[in-house]
Amino acid sequence: MKRRVCVVVTARPSYARIRTALAAIAAHPELELQLVVGASALLDRYGNTVKVIEEEGFRVDRKVFMIVEGENPVTSAKSTGLGLAELSTIFDDLQPHVVVTIADRFETIATAIAAAYLNIPLAHVQGGEITGSIDEKVRHAVTKFADVHFVASRPAAERVVRLGERRDRVFVTGCPSIDLAREALARGPLAADAALRWGGVGARVDLAAPYLVVLQHPVTTEWERARMHVEETLRAVDELGLPTLWFWPNVDSGSDGTARGIRAYRERHAVSNVHFFKNVPPEDFIRLLAGARCIVGNSSVAIRECSWLGVPAVNVGGRQAGRDRGANVIDVAYDHAAILGAIRRWTDGPRPPRGEIYGDGNAGRRMADLLARVPLDFEKRLTFEGEG
Amino acid sequence: MKRRVCVVVTARPSYARIRTALAAIAAHPELELQLVVGASALLDRYGNTVKVIEEEGFRVDRKVFMIVEGENPVTSAKSTGLGLAELSTIFDDLQPHVVVTIADRFETIATAIAAAYLNIPLAHVQGGEITGSIDEKVRHAVTKFADVHFVASRPAAERVVRLGERRDRVFVTGCPSIDLAREALARGPLAADAALRWGGVGARVDLAAPYLVVLQHPVTTEWERARMHVEETLRAVDELGLPTLWFWPNVDSGSDGTARGIRAYRERHAVSNVHFFKNVPPEDFIRLLAGARCIVGNSSVAIRECSWLGVPAVNVGGRQAGRDRGANVIDVAYDHAAILGAIRRWTDGPRPPRGEIYGDGNAGRRMADLLARVPLDFEKRLTFEGEG
Amino acid sequence: MKRRVCVVVTARPSYARIRTALAAIAAHPELELQLVVGASALLDRYGNTVKVIEEEGFRVDRKVFMIVEGENPVTSAKSTGLGLAELSTIFDDLQPHVVVTIADRFETIATAIAAAYLNIPLAHVQGGEITGSIDEKVRHAVTKFADVHFVASRPAAERVVRLGERRDRVFVTGCPSIDLAREALARGPLAADAALRWGGVGARVDLAAPYLVVLQHPVTTEWERARMHVEETLRAVDELGLPTLWFWPNVDSGSDGTARGIRAYRERHAVSNVHFFKNVPPEDFIRLLAGARCIVGNSSVAIRECSWLGVPAVNVGGRQAGRDRGANVIDVAYDHAAILGAIRRWTDGPRPPRGEIYGDGNAGRRMADLLARVPLDFEKRLTFEGEG
Amino acid sequence: MKRRVCVVVTARPSYARIRTALAAIAAHPELELQLVVGASALLDRYGNTVKVIEEEGFRVDRKVFMIVEGENPVTSAKSTGLGLAELSTIFDDLQPHVVVTIADRFETIATAIAAAYLNIPLAHVQGGEITGSIDEKVRHAVTKFADVHFVASRPAAERVVRLGERRDRVFVTGCPSIDLAREALARGPLAADAALRWGGVGARVDLAAPYLVVLQHPVTTEWERARMHVEETLRAVDELGLPTLWFWPNVDSGSDGTARGIRAYRERHAVSNVHFFKNVPPEDFIRLLAGARCIVGNSSVAIRECSWLGVPAVNVGGRQAGRDRGANVIDVAYDHAAILGAIRRWTDGPRPPRGEIYGDGNAGRRMADLLARVPLDFEKRLTFEGEG
Repeated sequence: MKRRVCVVVTARPSYARIRTALAAIAAHPELELQLVVGASALLDRYGNTVKVIEEEGFRVDRKVFMIVEGENPVTSAKSTGLGLAELSTIFDDLQPHVVVTIADRFETIATAIAAAYLNIPLAHVQGGEITGSIDEKVRHAVTKFADVHFVASRPAAERVVRLGERRDRVFVTGCPSIDLAREALARGPLAADAALRWGGVGARVDLAAPYLVVLQHPVTTEWERARMHVEETLRAVDELGLPTLWFWPNVDSGSDGTARGIRAYRERHAVSNVHFFKNVPPEDFIRLLAGARCIVGNSSVAIRECSWLGVPAVNVGGRQAGRDRGANVIDVAYDHAAILGAIRRWTDGPRPPRGEIYGDGNAGRRMADLLARVPLDFEKRLTFEGEG
Repeated sequence: MKRRVCVVVTARPSYARIRTALAAIAAHPELELQLVVGASALLDRYGNTVKVIEEEGFRVDRKVFMIVEGENPVTSAKSTGLGLAELSTIFDDLQPHVVVTIADRFETIATAIAAAYLNIPLAHVQGGEITGSIDEKVRHAVTKFADVHFVASRPAAERVVRLGERRDRVFVTGCPSIDLAREALARGPLAADAALRWGGVGARVDLAAPYLVVLQHPVTTEWERARMHVEETLRAVDELGLPTLWFWPNVDSGSDGTARGIRAYRERHAVSNVHFFKNVPPEDFIRLLAGARCIVGNSSVAIRECSWLGVPAVNVGGRQAGRDRGANVIDVAYDHAAILGAIRRWTDGPRPPRGEIYGDGNAGRRMADLLARVPLDFEKRLTFEGEG
Repeated sequence: MKRRVCVVVTARPSYARIRTALAAIAAHPELELQLVVGASALLDRYGNTVKVIEEEGFRVDRKVFMIVEGENPVTSAKSTGLGLAELSTIFDDLQPHVVVTIADRFETIATAIAAAYLNIPLAHVQGGEITGSIDEKVRHAVTKFADVHFVASRPAAERVVRLGERRDRVFVTGCPSIDLAREALARGPLAADAALRWGGVGARVDLAAPYLVVLQHPVTTEWERARMHVEETLRAVDELGLPTLWFWPNVDSGSDGTARGIRAYRERHAVSNVHFFKNVPPEDFIRLLAGARCIVGNSSVAIRECSWLGVPAVNVGGRQAGRDRGANVIDVAYDHAAILGAIRRWTDGPRPPRGEIYGDGNAGRRMADLLARVPLDFEKRLTFEGEG
Repeated sequence: MKRRVCVVVTARPSYARIRTALAAIAAHPELELQLVVGASALLDRYGNTVKVIEEEGFRVDRKVFMIVEGENPVTSAKSTGLGLAELSTIFDDLQPHVVVTIADRFETIATAIAAAYLNIPLAHVQGGEITGSIDEKVRHAVTKFADVHFVASRPAAERVVRLGERRDRVFVTGCPSIDLAREALARGPLAADAALRWGGVGARVDLAAPYLVVLQHPVTTEWERARMHVEETLRAVDELGLPTLWFWPNVDSGSDGTARGIRAYRERHAVSNVHFFKNVPPEDFIRLLAGARCIVGNSSVAIRECSWLGVPAVNVGGRQAGRDRGANVIDVAYDHAAILGAIRRWTDGPRPPRGEIYGDGNAGRRMADLLARVPLDFEKRLTFEGEG
C-alpha cells in the first residue's frame, strides 16, 4: 500500500517552498499525495494561491477556510483555533500516514497539533531556523510536535538536534525554494513585458532595464508601527527612482498597517516608479528575482533564494535576525537613508557570489524519497545527545 | 500598578497542583489574581472542580466550556481548537500581564498559544518532565511558547535549559502539590468515616484500618486497550481484598474505555472491597494518601506527593516512564499478578523514607514572589548555553 | 444525474424517525443518499447510534463531533455553533442537491442554517407541531429556513401553511416512525428474554409478562427541576411494582439532572422491578412498545407511535403540550400519585383503539418519491394564503 | 433593579438603525445598557464602526471578532457558527434580562439562537419585512426565536402577527433610522467641503452643488454576478457625470465581487466624478442624503430614510423587492441605460413628497420605554389569531 502523505498548504510563500516536494510526492510510486489548501491560500486578496496550485496540475483534496478576519493578535489566535478544529475533522477523514507542515505560521501549529492528537506522524519542513518574534516560538514548538524534520541547512539541523530531537530523524534536505530557483534559472530571463501579465496597479516596469523588487512584511509584535516601517522603505524607493516591483504583504497581524502605510504614502506622493502586485506565479517570481538588481524588504527569499541566485539584498529591520545568511545580504534599520544607502552600494558595486547554504536545488525529491522510507512513528521521549 | 496574573485551571489535578500558588498570588500585595476555570473543571462527571474552587474562597473571573464530547483523538484536537478560540477572547478582555498554564494537557497548549499570539508573557508550571505519549509532545511545545518556567526539580530545570531556554528564566520552585501535602500532614489523619462525605458508590471503607488507593488513567495513545489495562488492576485489587478507594479517571481520550472496563468487571464480579469516587476535595485527598498503605495505578501523585509523604506506590504501565522518582515507587507492567506482588511487597515490608526530590512544600509562595519580580517579556530567540 | 440527498442524523430518536426514508432514498433509482451522522448519534453514552446505522446497512459519508460537553444552556448554544461550522464545510464538500433535517434539535437548526447559507434547498421533516419550550422556537424557525416540508399530520400541514409557507411545498407524508411501527408489528412479539440482549443494569424483565416502558426526558427550560421530575415518575413506578423497562434520556440540557435523580433514588431505595437501558435497536424498541401494558414519561413516541400501535400512554408534565393526540393518552402532572393513578386506569381498564393521526406507515417511501420530483429551489418570499 | 438590556451591534447599517434606541436605553432610569460590538463593526475595511460608536459616547462592554474571511456562502455559514459560540459565552457572562437583535444578518440569527438557548428573552428590531434572498429566511426565522417585536410599519406588524406571534408583543415603533433622519434634518445642511473629512479616494465633491449618492450591496445568492451588477451602475454614474459619493459595500458574500468590479472599471476608465468612501458618521450620512439630488443602488436607506426625507431614489435590481415603499422610489433592472434614465427622471423632474410609512422619528425612545415595561418571558407556543 502506498503511504498517504497529506500536505497542508496555507499561504503563497508556503506553496513556493513546498512545490517541488509536492511534485515529487505525486510522482513517487510508493506515495499518494493528499493536498489540503486553506487559510490565505484560498483568499483573493492574497493572490488566490489555490487557483495557481490547481493550474499547476495538483488536485486539491480539501479546501478549508480558517482565517478569522481582523488581522490582529486576537484573530491570529482564533484562526489557529478554527484551523485546528477543521483540520482534525479533515485528517480523521483522509487518514494520512504522515502529515507535512511548513515553516512557522499559525496554520503550521494548528496542523501540527491536529496531527499529534490524532497520532499521525508529522514531518516539519524548515525547522531549526532563527528569526525572533512569534514565528520563533511557533517554529520550535512545531519541532517538539514533529517526528521527522526536513531542514534547510546544517546549522538548522544542529539546532533541531540540540532541541532534543533524534538525529536519525533530522534530514538536511535543503530548502525546496532553492529547487524552484534552479528550475527558474534554467528557463532564462523573463520577457521585458512579463510584468503586464500579473495585474496589479501603478507604474509599468520594463524587465529588460534594471529594476528593484520589494517584499516587506509587517512585524507581528510591532504591528502598530507597521505603517511607519513601510513608509521608510517606500520613501527610499521613491527617492532612488529605479523601476520597482512591490509585492503586497501576506495575511498576518498588522498587514492592514502596512497596506494603509502604502496607501497613505501614495495619496501624499506621486510615486511614479513603483508597480504594486498581489501575487505572481511562484516560478515567474523567482525569474523576476533572478533578474533584479536588488531585493529590498524583510522577506526570507532575500536571504534564501537570493543567496543561491546571487542576487544582492537589502534586509530591513529585525524580522530576519538570526537567520543564517550568505554574502548577498546587507542589513539595515527602518530608516530611509540607510535603506537608500544600502541599495546604492549594491547597484553601484559588484554582485555577490552565489552560495549553497540553503541547498543545491534537490530538496523536493529528497523529501519525497525520505517520506517513502523514513520510519513513521509518533511516540517521542525527550533525550539529549550524549545522555545515557 | 499590580501585575495581573491570569491562571487557567482546567482539571482537578491541575487545581491540586496550583492551589497554594493561587492563594499566594491572591495574597500578594503586588499581584492581582485573575482566575479562569474551564474544560473538565466545570463538568459534573469530573467532580465539579469549579465548585470546590469557589468553596475554597477563590473568585472565578471566567468560566469557559471547551470540551467537545467524544473522548477520542479527534475530539481532543477539536477541544484544543475551541479552547484556543475562547481563551483568546478572554485574555483580550482581561488583559493580564502574565498568564500561567499548568502541565501538559490540551488546555495547556491552547492557553499557551492564545497567550503567545496576544503577546502576553507566559509562565509554565511543570515543564521539563518526561512521560512519553502525547503529553510529552505537548509539554515541551509549551516550554517553547513559555517565557518563564517554574519547574518541580533540578533535573527538570536542566532539561528546560537544554531545550534552549534562558537559565535566568528557569526556576526550581518545587511542585506546588508538595505544598498541599505539607499542609495536609499538619492537620493529622482523617476521621475513620471521612469517606462517607464524598459520595461515590461501592463498599464502605474504614479509614482507620489499612486501605489502598487506586488512581489509574487511560493511556492516550493506546486508548482501545484502556479497558484491558484497568481490568488487570481491578483484578489485583479484588484478589488482595484490602479495603480500597478507587478514583475515577479524568477526561481524556480513552477514559470511556477505562470506565467501561470498571463497569464490565463489576457486572461479572462481586467486588466487595472497593469504593469508587469521582472527586474529593484536594486536601482530603492528600490526607487520604498520607494514611494509605499503598497507592496503585499510574498517577503522577504516586511519584510526586507520595515521595514526599513517604507513601509506597505501585506504578502500573508506561505512563510515568521517564519521570524522576524516589525510593517509594515499584514499577510493574499491566499484569494482575505483578501488580498484586508489588502491592504485597509494600504491605508486608517496611515503608520507604520521605524525599524532597519534588520540593519542600513552599512552591506556591515561591511562584507568587517570582511572578511579582521576574522580568516580563515575550520575545525569545533560540540560544543554547555555551553558544557565543 | 441522480439527485444527491444529504440526510443529517444526529440522535437516536431522529434515526428512528427517518430510517424508512433513508432506506427508500437509498433504493430510489433517481436519488443518491449522502448520510452525515453527528452529535449524540456518535457517542457511546447515548447508545452509539452510528454503529446501529452501519449495522443496518447504511454507508456513513461523514461523521461529525459537535457536542460541547456540559449539558446546559450555554453548551447547547455552543454546540449549535460548532455544528454549523462543521456542517458548512461538509455540505460544501458533498455538494448535495437537497439537505434533509429532522425535527427541532439544536443540530436541526445548525443543519438548516448551513444549508440556507450555502443555497442548498432544505427539506424539513416534522414541522408544524406544537410542544412548547426551546424546541418550539427551533422547529418554527427551521420551517422558515426550509423550502420543502414533510409533515406528520393534517393539522401540522395547516400550521406550516399559516406560517407563510407555500401550500404546494407542504406534504402530509405521515411520520416515518409509524412506518417502523408497521414493520415491527409484522414481525410479531419479542421473545420473553429479549431484554437480556440490550445490556443495561437493574432487574431482569420477562417480556412475556405484563410490563411498563418509561422514557422521560428533562425539560430544557426547567433543567434544575429535572431531578425532582424524574423522581416522581420513579416513585410511581416503584410503588406500582410492575416490571419496568426504563430508557435513559437523550443528550440535552438537564439530562445530568435526570441521571442524577435516577441515581440518587436508587441509592436511597431498593428499586427491584426496573431495568435501565441506554439504547436498543429502533425496531426492537417498537416491538417492545407494542407489547407494553403502558408507556409512561414525556416522550413523543407515547403520542405518535403508540397511537398507531394502540398502546396506552401516561404523559407526564408539559413537554408534549399542544401535540395532537389520539385516545391512547392520559395527561398528568409531575406527581407520583397522579402518575400511579393514570397507569392503573390503563392497566385495570380496556386498551384504546388504534389511530392514523400520524400516518399509515408509508411516510419514508412518500418522502423519497417527493424528493425525486419536488421542484428544488431555495428562494422564498413571504406570502400568506389569500393575499393577492 | 434595572433591567439589563444587551444590544448586539455588528455592522455599520445596524448601528445607524439602533443608535437612538441605544441613547434612549442608556438614558432610561429603569434600564442598564450592555453593548456588544462585533463582526464587521470591528473591522477597518468596513469603516471601523466601533470607533464611531465609542466616539459617540457609548461604552462597549464586549468586542467579538466573528467573521471567517472568504466572503462566500461557506464562510457566511461558518461566521454564523463562530458568532453563536462566542455570543453564548458573552451572554452567559453578562446575564442580560433581554437581548436586542437587529434586522436579518448572519450575526442576527447567531444572536437570536444564543439568546434563545440561554433562555434570555429576545427583542427583534425590524421583523416582518419582505426582501427575498437569504435575508428573508433569516429575518422570519429570527421572528420565530423572538419574544418581543419592534417593527417599522403597520404592514410589517401584520405579517409578524400572521406568522403566529402574539399581537400584544408586536409593537409598531417605526424604524429608528427615521429618528436619525429627524435629528439630522434639524441640524441643517452639511458644509460644502464636508466630504473632505471622511477620507476615501477619488474626485473631490462639492456638497453645495447637486450630487448623487450611491450605495450598492452585492446580492448574496447571485454573488458571482456582483461584479457585473456594480459595473452597470458605475457606467450609468460615469455617463451622467454628476458629482457622486459612492459608499463601499458592507461585508457579505460577494462584496469582493463588487469591490473588484469597482476596481476593474476604474482601471479601464478615468472616472472623474466619483469619490469612494468606506464610512462616514451615521449622522453625516443622513445629512448627506438629505442634500442629495438622488440616491442610487439597492440599499434600504433609499426606501426607508429617503421616504421620510423626501429624497428621490433609483432602486436597482431585486434586493429590495417586496419592501413597502413610498412615492420616492423608481425601480429599475441591472442595466446602465435604465439606471441612467431613472436618475434623469428625478434630476430633471420634481422631488417626491415626504412620507411616514417607516415612522415619525421617535422609534428609539419608544423601544426603550417598551423594554422597560414589556413582560419579559421566553416561552412561546404557536397560536394563530382567531384560533380557539
